Amino acid sequence: MNTYGHAFRITIFGTSHGPGVGCVIDGCPANVPISLEAVQLEVERRKPSAGIGTPRAEEDLVQIQSGVHEGKSTGAPIQIFIPNRDTDSSKYAKFRQTPRPGHADYPALMKYGEGHDLRGGGQFSGRMTAPLAAAGGVAKSLLAEEGVRVAAYARSIGQVVDQEERALEDLGSVYEHPTRAATQELDGRMQREILAAKEDGDSVGGVVRCLADGLPVGVGEPFFDTLDGELAKFMFAIPAVKGVDFGSGFAAARKLGSENNDPYRIEAGRVRTSTNHAGGVLGGMSNGMPLDLRVAFKPTASIAKPQGTVDLGTGKEAILKIEGRHDPCIVPRAVVVVEAAVALVLVDLMMRGGYIARQC
Amino acid sequence: MNTYGHAFRITIFGTSHGPGVGCVIDGCPANVPISLEAVQLEVERRKPSAGIGTPRAEEDLVQIQSGVHEGKSTGAPIQIFIPNRDTDSSKYAKFRQTPRPGHADYPALMKYGEGHDLRGGGQFSGRMTAPLAAAGGVAKSLLAEEGVRVAAYARSIGQVVDQEERALEDLGSVYEHPTRAATQELDGRMQREILAAKEDGDSVGGVVRCLADGLPVGVGEPFFDTLDGELAKFMFAIPAVKGVDFGSGFAAARKLGSENNDPYRIEAGRVRTSTNHAGGVLGGMSNGMPLDLRVAFKPTASIAKPQGTVDLGTGKEAILKIEGRHDPCIVPRAVVVVEAAVALVLVDLMMRGGYIARQC
Amino acid sequence: MNTYGHAFRITIFGTSHGPGVGCVIDGCPANVPISLEAVQLEVERRKPSAGIGTPRAEEDLVQIQSGVHEGKSTGAPIQIFIPNRDTDSSKYAKFRQTPRPGHADYPALMKYGEGHDLRGGGQFSGRMTAPLAAAGGVAKSLLAEEGVRVAAYARSIGQVVDQEERALEDLGSVYEHPTRAATQELDGRMQREILAAKEDGDSVGGVVRCLADGLPVGVGEPFFDTLDGELAKFMFAIPAVKGVDFGSGFAAARKLGSENNDPYRIEAGRVRTSTNHAGGVLGGMSNGMPLDLRVAFKPTASIAKPQGTVDLGTGKEAILKIEGRHDPCIVPRAVVVVEAAVALVLVDLMMRGGYIARQC
Amino acid sequence: MNTYGHAFRITIFGTSHGPGVGCVIDGCPANVPISLEAVQLEVERRKPSAGIGTPRAEEDLVQIQSGVHEGKSTGAPIQIFIPNRDTDSSKYAKFRQTPRPGHADYPALMKYGEGHDLRGGGQFSGRMTAPLAAAGGVAKSLLAEEGVRVAAYARSIGQVVDQEERALEDLGSVYEHPTRAATQELDGRMQREILAAKEDGDSVGGVVRCLADGLPVGVGEPFFDTLDGELAKFMFAIPAVKGVDFGSGFAAARKLGSENNDPYRIEAGRVRTSTNHAGGVLGGMSNGMPLDLRVAFKPTASIAKPQGTVDLGTGKEAILKIEGRHDPCIVPRAVVVVEAAVALVLVDLMMRGGYIARQC
Repeated sequence: MNTYGHAFRITIFGTSHGPGVGCVIDGCPANVPISLEAVQLEVERRKPSAGIGTPRAEEDLVQIQSGVHEGKSTGAPIQIFIPNRDTDSSKYAKFRQTPRPGHADYPALMKYGEGHDLRGGGQFSGRMTAPLAAAGGVAKSLLAEEGVRVAAYARSIGQVVDQEERALEDLGSVYEHPTRAATQELDGRMQREILAAKEDGDSVGGVVRCLADGLPVGVGEPFFDTLDGELAKFMFAIPAVKGVDFGSGFAAARKLGSENNDPYRIEAGRVRTSTNHAGGVLGGMSNGMPLDLRVAFKPTASIAKPQGTVDLGTGKEAILKIEGRHDPCIVPRAVVVVEAAVALVLVDLMMRGGYIARQC
Repeated sequence: MNTYGHAFRITIFGTSHGPGVGCVIDGCPANVPISLEAVQLEVERRKPSAGIGTPRAEEDLVQIQSGVHEGKSTGAPIQIFIPNRDTDSSKYAKFRQTPRPGHADYPALMKYGEGHDLRGGGQFSGRMTAPLAAAGGVAKSLLAEEGVRVAAYARSIGQVVDQEERALEDLGSVYEHPTRAATQELDGRMQREILAAKEDGDSVGGVVRCLADGLPVGVGEPFFDTLDGELAKFMFAIPAVKGVDFGSGFAAARKLGSENNDPYRIEAGRVRTSTNHAGGVLGGMSNGMPLDLRVAFKPTASIAKPQGTVDLGTGKEAILKIEGRHDPCIVPRAVVVVEAAVALVLVDLMMRGGYIARQC
Repeated sequence: MNTYGHAFRITIFGTSHGPGVGCVIDGCPANVPISLEAVQLEVERRKPSAGIGTPRAEEDLVQIQSGVHEGKSTGAPIQIFIPNRDTDSSKYAKFRQTPRPGHADYPALMKYGEGHDLRGGGQFSGRMTAPLAAAGGVAKSLLAEEGVRVAAYARSIGQVVDQEERALEDLGSVYEHPTRAATQELDGRMQREILAAKEDGDSVGGVVRCLADGLPVGVGEPFFDTLDGELAKFMFAIPAVKGVDFGSGFAAARKLGSENNDPYRIEAGRVRTSTNHAGGVLGGMSNGMPLDLRVAFKPTASIAKPQGTVDLGTGKEAILKIEGRHDPCIVPRAVVVVEAAVALVLVDLMMRGGYIARQC
Repeated sequence: MNTYGHAFRITIFGTSHGPGVGCVIDGCPANVPISLEAVQLEVERRKPSAGIGTPRAEEDLVQIQSGVHEGKSTGAPIQIFIPNRDTDSSKYAKFRQTPRPGHADYPALMKYGEGHDLRGGGQFSGRMTAPLAAAGGVAKSLLAEEGVRVAAYARSIGQVVDQEERALEDLGSVYEHPTRAATQELDGRMQREILAAKEDGDSVGGVVRCLADGLPVGVGEPFFDTLDGELAKFMFAIPAVKGVDFGSGFAAARKLGSENNDPYRIEAGRVRTSTNHAGGVLGGMSNGMPLDLRVAFKPTASIAKPQGTVDLGTGKEAILKIEGRHDPCIVPRAVVVVEAAVALVLVDLMMRGGYIARQC
């Protein structure tokens, strides 16, 4: 279903090849300063960069159609609409017969039957992340009022891995880099990794790391609606995500307890931990340390190389050649989407826990 | 909050040091054969094994107090209760002052204040997974009627990693092995890993892998309530989980699209994929291949070694020594809990998607 | 919050004095025939009729922006948008200082503070029922496939009460009558009742009765999500509703059990009841008899007569004179909205109970 | 489904003829004083009174099994269990074949099939209101901390109607009267009404009126989750409820706007209304005036007189004679249940709106 959240909810709609995509944000407190420019900026950051992305020009002009009046939220639902440009849907017709490996085509056709609108990937299109980015802009505006910051970057693309344990302060120039790497040097290497795959008619994946600080202690609603669980759930809604971990994450499985536990200490009068192997989450609640998660993206499923598939009409195996140009790597565009996802989850859980009031 | 699910819901209650723990299962179709023995067996499989676990004797006798009549579900809520044995709560008093590193003590005290019942970890106790295991027994009974099987095993404990890509058929003897390893040989090595940590007053983590087959194609409710997202959310509710991935998972981030895509083929008249890098999930829906996920557990937070903490009363740093005996590794006990979590999520999503009927 | 439903959900957005109003319908099965004309017709039926309604011209041209392709639902969210015409908001400014009796102004200002957008009633505007009517068109299209019919009429307006126990078959000409009375004779009397109030600068209320047949037995999800309870909840979301009852309803409170119980009988091979005092609902579930509910609407709160209010700025009592023209009776426009509400609730509960499949 | 609420949730379980009935309350803030005695008292008030109720002796000893420690809530789920006494289920067997008019038997058998446990009415038993009353005790304890009071009384039983517009202050002796009438004189008349029906092998219905004051302005989450809508939804979950209205309610439908609008005024420095035709609700939110609702109960469906039914086995009409003794009027026992329902809804909406904090 297309709604996420309890106290602060987002509902997305639209498809890649219709009039547009958008979302409704419900439960936003009144009086939050929300500027169209700030929301538009988030959507801009999701656009493909010259050279390393798809050349499809997306204008993505954000319209806020309700819920914001004179630069502030009113308490009513905020509706955001992003019109699509004219698109050629003809090339998608054949995927109904011969589903694309790695895409949602086959399960979607089984689930929705004849009615499924496959054009542009239908409701499974990566384009659905544009309204997510826009909604993230609203959530970040609210978080800013609460002193919470969220920032992500490309931790790895293909074989290029950024091994540094960067802090939020180190991420100031991420959006100046087309790959969303933390440094210019890594950006260059990641660009080359992407272009090499592209030349080969292939694609690469990567890992996005996201940090957030300024959270009060106790955000998260265990047993089930945990901070980490809600974040993970949202991350898997982002197309191409295959893994999520927090703090030392999968590496914790190989550590000793005496290595992995984070001892408490007092720092400037506040309770902190010396290390942050927990990634800011204990018992499903924020513990006052920066939130730290990693999200693994698979390589883009649409590649130029011919692939084995089946013909659902004849029941025979077939070879599929996907025409057109596609992002050889989704990671650079996904960075702002991961930030949006984190911001949306944090606002919802902070409102549920009473850490954000009804009026700003 | 303590409820999971939409169409098939579980609500858990209880604490480690009260009369007992339990759950309410709501939405179970009528006429599903449910035996107390089958449910009890799941709870048994969660008990610590001699030597490698905590010596605390847990009787864990399951009582089904409503919703099952003459061996079949009635359509009414199923309530399951597991009485606690008498426990000594005195040793927990000091954690209120000096919270345990790696535990929920500190955020819970900040969130719930004076009222928080810290004894035995309160509602954050690992004991809350006993009713999960029991509920998993009910979910598995229902899945069995639908031809769906779920099985997990310890893929790694500490440095011992089971590198084989095992199938569901290979997991028949898992519960004969105290560590829940897939083979006797690995079980021996994993036991030694655990005992070495234990002797050191330390603990180890590990990875549980879970497989499920027999799923229809299309299970999952995108955009947000995806098969992988719902599973991940539930996994993070299990204490000590720090990461979840599907299929090639984090490794997919380093692969090329041409390596990672799973080509379709026809096998015995059915659409299948040659490989299963997707882990059975595409676009948030099952694709007909076995579900395949990995869940990373951190080493047990309770260790015998002295650790740095803070005294919340004085605001000064302090050294904490945790008395008593604790599981040096939670993984063996977590295997059946992961199975339960998978089963509960699958039933909920299958019911939501109309794949399971109101009456069995 | 602005979302209703579990399996079939509607989220509304917009305000009276912004670009438009609309809704997102999520969970609609794929392949349901949905025509823009049918949806537009529902919205037309909500428009004020010449003479007895407000003279404000509403064009209300429905746009379906996603989820319907080639005349059928795709399984993706259906977004419907209804642009507003240019409106003069200036007259609403003073209600921020001197709230209108009987309106949401005062509680909304207390709840949302400065940010609340009072223009046109903001999110409390009766205009929010336009997207409800549109969504009702979608729900009715789906119900038609299942053989379920829904029809309502004005049972009373002011002192004019239609005492006949009309059946669904008797309601064929309701929408030919400006007041939505069941007969032309009643329509005339009800029109005069409305016009008399209007001339007096006053307003009148009334009762809408709604019937539905063709429901399978068992629709409703007790204990809490009952058929009658869900219908009632939705009805109270419609502005100006003050009461809801089913079957003999409030009159049942004065009856004997032997009068009020509906004896079962066999009719054309099917189990029926001789009477329908239950209004089609027993134990929160449909019992196979026609659903029968009544919804009480208060007289329109906006009247021309001067009224006592308070000045929130000075804290003193004040006299308010509401300018402009307003519906002297909301009932005629509410009839199709009640039908929509019933249709939306029925679809959600039928889907939740497995009575409607994922694909049509 | 058996869960109500978002921020403060109740899940009920059990059946009349099993080990017991109970509930889980989730989301209760920590540190709320909760005494077993106060909860037990609510359950006592639901018991049948000598003479006018069923002679079935119900001990109804409340057990609080988790979530309360040293007289205060801990923040963990509160589980309440009320064991059943031994009961004779044999007399219910025939209702499976010949369903009782006015009961849930027939729709429940159609919905749940063979599995439905009909004994004592199964999950549709009036006994399910015992845990509601208990949960109401918890909710009232929390409301008392917030200065909110809830009180109900029997406004009518059969033909005896209490026409006074009583205020909360006038309801101090309600629970001294077996019928829950507001005065001793009315209690006498109502008792005679009930006994007359009982002697006749018949039953009577009635109306419960409930008031609440001390609410902040703005409670309720429009558009859909309104104060009146949520209350109505919960009321219809109470067995035998057929109608709900607020303030002038159904009578408003016959009034003029100038009569029905409540003018604002200043009273002791606070904004109030001169009249309370709105029943304390405007636009789905509390307006600062006392909440005022009426709930219509049908006469008890179980009567001694023979009734027409059908034999589901043979498909022929049949005569049913219900043996045993049943409440000739449910209203006296329902009064405390209506109070509980109101209290539970108020707490949930107050928590959702941020009017109640996480810690008390």
